[in-house]
Amino acid sequence: MQVTLKQVAAQAGVSTSAVSRTFTEGASVSDKTRHKVETAAAALGYSPNVLASSLTTGRTKMIGLVSNNFHNPVFLEVFDQFTSGLQAKGLRPLLVNLSDVEEPDGLLRLLRQYSVDGVIIASSTVPPAFPRAFTAAGIPIVHSFGRYSASQGVHVVGIDNIDCGRIAARTLVARGYQRVGFLGGPATATTTQDRWTGFQQELSAHPQIHLSHSFAAAYSYDAGEAEMARLLTGTPAEAYFCGDDVLSIGAMSAIRTAGLCVPEDIGILGLNDMEMSRWALINLTTIRQPIPEIIAASLDVIVSQIEDPGRSTEARIFPCALVERGTLRPLPAGISET
Amino acid sequence: MQVTLKQVAAQAGVSTSAVSRTFTEGASVSDKTRHKVETAAAALGYSPNVLASSLTTGRTKMIGLVSNNFHNPVFLEVFDQFTSGLQAKGLRPLLVNLSDVEEPDGLLRLLRQYSVDGVIIASSTVPPAFPRAFTAAGIPIVHSFGRYSASQGVHVVGIDNIDCGRIAARTLVARGYQRVGFLGGPATATTTQDRWTGFQQELSAHPQIHLSHSFAAAYSYDAGEAEMARLLTGTPAEAYFCGDDVLSIGAMSAIRTAGLCVPEDIGILGLNDMEMSRWALINLTTIRQPIPEIIAASLDVIVSQIEDPGRSTEARIFPCALVERGTLRPLPAGISET
Repeated sequence: MQVTLKQVAAQAGVSTSAVSRTFTEGASVSDKTRHKVETAAAALGYSPNVLASSLTTGRTKMIGLVSNNFHNPVFLEVFDQFTSGLQAKGLRPLLVNLSDVEEPDGLLRLLRQYSVDGVIIASSTVPPAFPRAFTAAGIPIVHSFGRYSASQGVHVVGIDNIDCGRIAARTLVARGYQRVGFLGGPATATTTQDRWTGFQQELSAHPQIHLSHSFAAAYSYDAGEAEMARLLTGTPAEAYFCGDDVLSIGAMSAIRTAGLCVPEDIGILGLNDMEMSRWALINLTTIRQPIPEIIAASLDVIVSQIEDPGRSTEARIFPCALVERGTLRPLPAGISET
Repeated sequence: MQVTLKQVAAQAGVSTSAVSRTFTEGASVSDKTRHKVETAAAALGYSPNVLASSLTTGRTKMIGLVSNNFHNPVFLEVFDQFTSGLQAKGLRPLLVNLSDVEEPDGLLRLLRQYSVDGVIIASSTVPPAFPRAFTAAGIPIVHSFGRYSASQGVHVVGIDNIDCGRIAARTLVARGYQRVGFLGGPATATTTQDRWTGFQQELSAHPQIHLSHSFAAAYSYDAGEAEMARLLTGTPAEAYFCGDDVLSIGAMSAIRTAGLCVPEDIGILGLNDMEMSRWALINLTTIRQPIPEIIAASLDVIVSQIEDPGRSTEARIFPCALVERGTLRPLPAGISET
């Protein structure tokens, strides 16, 4: 059975209130009493119940960690780094798989039931109504991998996806590709929209280059494979900027299944630089999204909001950069990456 | 601000106790009162606080979901299926990344602080002392992907890893390999030990086949690649049974980096059949571990324990089977899988 506060008080020879104060952050208790209580607690194996004390402190030290794409391997890194980072701050992630939750109110109700101290939405494909609902309800929230919009008042940590589209276009132009394609993620995702915008913008300065585009149904292997298989039934481009790494891997699989080679027949450029992109069997040329920095900043933003609920909305945007591997033809001699 | 029970009672024209009973499972309340309360709650946007009510019900509807290997992609499927499955039962996973937690008492203390209703340990490499500590403390627990041991009294759901080792050996023997190797996971993992035992047992009937073995430092890509790179500095076997799929992919990468081909130069056999094993770039011949069945049974076992704490310990063990793809030489004509 669980050891009670009363038993610890009796063993320590102090009041229950002294025990309670010892385990309440910031509460006043003498060093001598604290020592007695801690000795008694250790001897009895007592640990304070965070949930019971949350009724007085208003803090559960739980953070809702919400995502909706468990078929994209990049999220294993994301979960790893979020859980470790939260644990290092004495916080615990209550994991929500949004695939089953259909509307913002349901999620809000669910996370309120658990009185989470804050919410991290870790996905670029969650509709903006979700983070907005939490912001409106006054619950600390950060949208990691989201799109910043001054009008929505939601804290966002991520990258400049329009700039990523430009980097991708410059990368393909520098390698001399004359027919390029955008194989995006779902058309409804802000990341897809922004990457496509930047890609187009940069290519508009190169009207001689033929540009095509289409969208995959999800950021997943299956969606990338299906979309590339479809493209291969027509005249494919010479190189594709794919919405992300897992779409790239799906596309490469379809290319191989069709008896073609990457990069000899078709070049592929990804985005994320997830762990497995460097695997020798994959060896994907990609644009690195700085995930550890995004996660550290997200944790910082959520903790700051919990400590200071009145602080103004911020966006923390990190730069991305090309990681050269084996899925694009090499740069011609004398040409440098711009 | 959060709507209180009192406000709902006032709006509904009932007592606070009637509101409380309406939201307590199994508590007695008239249909008329329930209707009044639910209407008022919906109008005000009230949702009952699970944590506050847990102080009377003794149930938080939170389950500790504990794992320690966030570098093995198979765990993305495991987390996906566990979170969906728990959500479907009205339960919530409190995710613990065991990589940071060093001893069972720390984990026990941590999960007690949150009064979780039960604990799922989802890993084969967690030391047996962890599940034992929870069992001893009377906390409902299931060890998924664990090893059954009658003496430890821990509920286990998983596979017969000794039998998997035998299946692997029969598979390599049937394909005529004369020098076979076991490239296991960490030597301390019960899965590694059992797979190696079964592999040896089966091969003992084939003394003409040369058998070698070694262990990788972890179930991870990097560990598989490093161990295969080391093996390639000597005389490698003709085919390896690798500890799991991610180790297999690491090993295949080392083989490719050395300028050799799979299966022409070296055959590779994995275990798990995780999602990406069927990817065309990987196309791994492997032994399927029935993950959906293991997870469904684990959820069943944990819920049953919560509902009936006195029930006796059980082990649910599922059969595994070979999934033929492209990383072993084909079966000779006339030979069938046994």
